[in-house]
This record gives sequence, structure tokens and C-alpha cells, in this order.
Amino acid sequence: MNINEWQLEQFHHDTYVQGFKVKKKLFETQSKYQKITVVDTEAVGRLLLLDGKTMVSDADEFVYHELMGHIPLMTVANAKHILIIGGGDGGIVREVVKHPDIESVTLVEIDEEVVTVSKEFFPDCTSGLSHPKVKLVMEDGAAFLKNSSQLYDVIIIDSTDPENFASTLFTKEFYQTVKNKLTANGIMMAQTENPFLDTYSIKSIYDNLRSNFKNVFSLSAPMLIYPGVYWSFAYCSENTMPTKLREDKTAFMNTLAPSLKWYNPEWHLGAFQISNFHKRKIGTLV
Amino acid sequence: MNINEWQLEQFHHDTYVQGFKVKKKLFETQSKYQKITVVDTEAVGRLLLLDGKTMVSDADEFVYHELMGHIPLMTVANAKHILIIGGGDGGIVREVVKHPDIESVTLVEIDEEVVTVSKEFFPDCTSGLSHPKVKLVMEDGAAFLKNSSQLYDVIIIDSTDPENFASTLFTKEFYQTVKNKLTANGIMMAQTENPFLDTYSIKSIYDNLRSNFKNVFSLSAPMLIYPGVYWSFAYCSENTMPTKLREDKTAFMNTLAPSLKWYNPEWHLGAFQISNFHKRKIGTLV
Repeated sequence: MNINEWQLEQFHHDTYVQGFKVKKKLFETQSKYQKITVVDTEAVGRLLLLDGKTMVSDADEFVYHELMGHIPLMTVANAKHILIIGGGDGGIVREVVKHPDIESVTLVEIDEEVVTVSKEFFPDCTSGLSHPKVKLVMEDGAAFLKNSSQLYDVIIIDSTDPENFASTLFTKEFYQTVKNKLTANGIMMAQTENPFLDTYSIKSIYDNLRSNFKNVFSLSAPMLIYPGVYWSFAYCSENTMPTKLREDKTAFMNTLAPSLKWYNPEWHLGAFQISNFHKRKIGTLV
Repeated sequence: MNINEWQLEQFHHDTYVQGFKVKKKLFETQSKYQKITVVDTEAVGRLLLLDGKTMVSDADEFVYHELMGHIPLMTVANAKHILIIGGGDGGIVREVVKHPDIESVTLVEIDEEVVTVSKEFFPDCTSGLSHPKVKLVMEDGAAFLKNSSQLYDVIIIDSTDPENFASTLFTKEFYQTVKNKLTANGIMMAQTENPFLDTYSIKSIYDNLRSNFKNVFSLSAPMLIYPGVYWSFAYCSENTMPTKLREDKTAFMNTLAPSLKWYNPEWHLGAFQISNFHKRKIGTLV
């Protein structure tokens, strides 16, 4: 094995490695915040990395983006205003704008270069960014939200790992700000790392969530390019429940379903039925 | 990265790599069938490899073994006789014998050395092998089944990838033999590889299953040490359905539940609610 031919990522305190054979490095730059790399791989097509960490690939981007977009939109009644923090690749926006009853989608990305690079190398992901309901804000998500006078029906946290500038997005204080900017039926979605590896103490992330939200649920889905693949996500609310699908969305979902690569309502309901292992990791089972 | 310090596995036509930092190699031998290796790793504890492929680890063995053991036992009415083909590590046997109403468990493993090595290095996995209801047979599973006059209520195929001597266990002919040795309400469980990587054409595996069984269902679970982690399993029957849990098992499961690391009945039901992606891969959605 010639390691120069591979895009390798060591994680979990450098005890675990995952990697993809590279056909060609397509792009690399150092932005104000991070190193942005795009490589073309044999196994997963184009792959976007931030500071050497896998973020988006052609092969599995739809899992994350459909999950993050459709789970809230299928459960929050009358959702009009959607906020996405992070996610400069645009994948969640692309899914959210498929719901015709929304009025606005605001994407707050700290690093403008992520958007620029994604537009060039992941045009399918960014295809929703030019939609007339979409507003792009290049700013720190936590600061934006703190100063916002708008309330949102859905706030989606599409963050990197809880390290460096993204660590703010996993704190008790940040979750309180999110809660204060949600409508009464509003919900927050967030990625909450790999429960198996548990590099960042998923229990403490969920403790922070529970100290703010009445309802905190967890689900999982496989993200082929992420460390250890098995990925968890949180759904938090005061009043809305993740497994009560909106009946007025049924006809819409039947029309949309054939175009979706991952999401369907049955999978949505099933994904919230988590294992004993997952429950113990997030602290809901002894 | 010093690759000599790592247990690396290349797969999916050598386009993808996964690996674990090794603390110490504990054992290696060449059996009649394969190279058997045990290493101690930082991330997943002890790890058993057959011909360099990850098979069992301390960190995640319970996912596979509880799933393979409890899903059939919670759905097949009055299951008395259980056959396990492969699985010389004993993990599935350990789970199956927790059900007091079974009468016999037969484990047919082609490679006796796998059992010997597992007894030494994975004593928790092999702890069920000395149970009075358990019978060990060291033989080729397909040959054993063909010649068996016994009918089984549950047949569990715990095989390696469809390569070399294990490839027989994925053929139409083998599945027909299995079907012929099942009771009317019997079911077969089998591992069916990673749908994301799809190295071995999961569609053709499921076509072979469907050409024999009236009911063919698929579920998934994460196996941290397997290539690409996201793993699929098949549940096949003529009359028994995977999502109809036996009511006479409720009290038993309530008692057993606290000792289980992965399985619970809600997760069992949810896991059969598969994504559009999974459906398309196995050929049940266009």
C-alpha cells in the first residue's frame, strides 16, 4: 500500500483510520478558517475535506441532507421560516426548498470559500442556493442567531466536529440561544457525532441539549465517509414530536418520494427506534 | 503514519481502506482453510481476522450476535431447534441459549481452529458453547445441511464474504436446501454485506433469496469493524413475518432486556423500515 495514493483520515485519538484511494486532487486552498480540499476518489467520487476531515462526497451526501431537511419539514406544523447554520455545501437547502409551503430559508455559513468551492465541485448540492426563497449570510452562526430578531420554525445545525470554531455550536449556551429563536412548535436538528467511537462524549452533548429542550430525541443513519460511518443526529423541541408525521404532507411526500435517494416516511419513523447501546450512550438507559 | 503499526484492510476493489492501530499481535496461525489472526487494538480491543478480514471485535460483536440471535427467536412461534452455519466464535450461540424454550442449538463450523482460537481469545463469545443444549459439528455447512434429516425452526447463516469456500452459502441452490430443512413457520437469517459499497452485488444475493422464499426482508445495523460499517441482513420465511413479535415473549424480553447491549424490540421493528437507497439496492424499489 502506497499511502501517498490515499486520502487517509486518522481519528478517535489516532487509533482508527479510514481512507479512499485518490484518482486526482482537484483543488486545495487555505481559507481564513480552514484548509479546503477536493479530491476525486475511486470509491465515493468527489470528496470535500475541511482541514483533512471528510465532509461531503458524491456517494453519500444525500443521506445527511435528506435526513436533515425532510425529518423536520415532515413533522413541524406550518413551517415557514428555516435557518441552517453551517452547511455551506448547500445540500440541506436543496432538500428544504422542495417543500413548497416554506417561505424562507436562511443559510449562515462562516466560511464563504466553502460555498464557492462547493458551487464549482458539487453543483448538485448547491443547486438550491439560487432559489428565490433562499438567503445566504456569511457570518458566524452563533453570533448571527444571537442578534437575530426573527423566529424560526426549524433550525438545523450542520456543523463540523466539536473542535476549534465549531465547538461553540455544541454548548449549553448556544442551544439556549437556538431555543429562544424557535417558534412554539419549532424544532432544532443537529448532527451529534458517532456513538460507537464516542470521541467527543455524546452524553455531554445530549446533557447540554436536555438542559434546554423538553423533548430530545436521537436517531442514526450511515454516513459512509464519516469516521466510523454510524452517525447520530438530535431532534429537539418543546411541543413537536419526531414520530408524528404531518398528515397534510402525505400527498406531497407521495409525489416527492420517487426523487428521494434515502428518505421515506417509514424509514423516518423507524430511525427513531434506537438500540440499547445508543440509549446508553446518550444517557437515557442505565 | 507508520503503516506497520496498523491492522489495515483494503476492500471494495482496493479503493477503500479501514484500519485499527495495533497494540500487539496476540496470535497467528494458518489453518486448513484460512489464516487466523488475533490482534489487540487501541480502538476496538481484541480483533479476530480471517485471511486479513475483520471478523469479531470486543467493541461491536454484540450488535451482530444479538441481532442474529434475538430477531428470529422473537418472531418464530414455538422455535425448538436452531441451526447456525459458520459463526465458530460462538457469539450467536451465546444469545440463542438465553431463550429457555429452545431445545437444541447446532453450530456447524467448517474450521475447528476458529473455535479453538475464539475460546482462548474471546471467552465471552464462546461462553454459550458449553451449554447442554448446544451441539458442535465441524463440517462444511452446505454439506451438513444437505444430508440432515432434521428440520429446524431457525437457520442462521453466519458467513464470511461470498468468496472462496463461503461463496456456496450465497447461491440459489444453497438457499433451496435451507428452505427444505425449515419447518413451516421457520425462518432463515443471513448477513448480506454492505449495501453502500455493494462489492458483491447485493441485488443478486436478494434475487437468489427471492427465488426461494415467499417473504424476503432486509434490515441494517452498524458493524464498526466491517468494511464500510453499514451492514445488511436478510430475514426469509414462508409464513413468519419479522415485524410481528411473539406476544408470549414479552415477559421474557422484559427480564432479558437489561442484559442486552444492543437489541430491544422497538429497535427490531424500526430496523426493518429501510431507506429508499436500501430498497433500490436489494431491488424492491425502482
